Amino acid sequence: MLPRTYDNQVCSVARTLETIGDRWTMLVVRDAFLGVRRFEDFQRDLGIARNVLTDRLARLVDDGIFERHRYQEKPERFEYRLTEKGIDLWLVMVSLMKWGDRYAAPDGPPMLVLHKGCGGEVDERFRCKSCGADVDARSSEARPGPAADRRSPIAVP
Amino acid sequence: MLPRTYDNQVCSVARTLETIGDRWTMLVVRDAFLGVRRFEDFQRDLGIARNVLTDRLARLVDDGIFERHRYQEKPERFEYRLTEKGIDLWLVMVSLMKWGDRYAAPDGPPMLVLHKGCGGEVDERFRCKSCGADVDARSSEARPGPAADRRSPIAVP
Repeated sequence: MLPRTYDNQVCSVARTLETIGDRWTMLVVRDAFLGVRRFEDFQRDLGIARNVLTDRLARLVDDGIFERHRYQEKPERFEYRLTEKGIDLWLVMVSLMKWGDRYAAPDGPPMLVLHKGCGGEVDERFRCKSCGADVDARSSEARPGPAADRRSPIAVP
Repeated sequence: MLPRTYDNQVCSVARTLETIGDRWTMLVVRDAFLGVRRFEDFQRDLGIARNVLTDRLARLVDDGIFERHRYQEKPERFEYRLTEKGIDLWLVMVSLMKWGDRYAAPDGPPMLVLHKGCGGEVDERFRCKSCGADVDARSSEARPGPAADRRSPIAVP
């Protein structure tokens, strides 16, 4: 048991969940790690209601996880890119994924995170199973895993 | 961008969030890692509504994260203990905590995770900063950090 002087409100888990403790928020961040940047693509990929997506993207910008970049002038359109603060969520994302691979993936991992260049699989401690290197967001790449193509493909244009 | 053949519903992040993608659920699990086991203690520590706590505990038992153990017969009372599946959430928990320590802890880490016996701090890759060993749930211990005692203590009996 934690000592009595520890206030449960002052907690980095609780504070992190204030930012990303919403299922849609984490799935929007997941998609960003997979290269999705535009509203329409998030919307199509997640099948999320547009007003909910608008809300989550605005919060992610407010919280400094995403930055808006204009990619079209008339009409003005923006894409959403992960900031450094957002990219640092990669460790959280991989931890969530690895737990799911172990306990909620009866057909095998839907996605593999590989050490870029080397090709080794990244383990739950973010290390390359092949060469032992510490892997991070920039030195990794995602590939469909054994269970990836069992269902119908999504129609990303 | 992920290949088109990847179905976003077959995803270990999404599936993990189906189990623990609720703020209260993760805070209940956090408390369990800190040694809380009984309904009244979860309730007092989290300040959560009793019906919400009842619901989250039941789900955590259904999902195999907690096991119920009877600790009193008349009246019958149960405590909730992490299963192996639950203990494996330690990596997720520490990842959430470390991100929060970096981005949401202006007064310093509220809690430190230390390598038991060694006393070294555990880093965001679950390694002991002192001796370099891989640390897990059982070889770690929590201690109040620099920002832990700025507020009033909680009254755990």
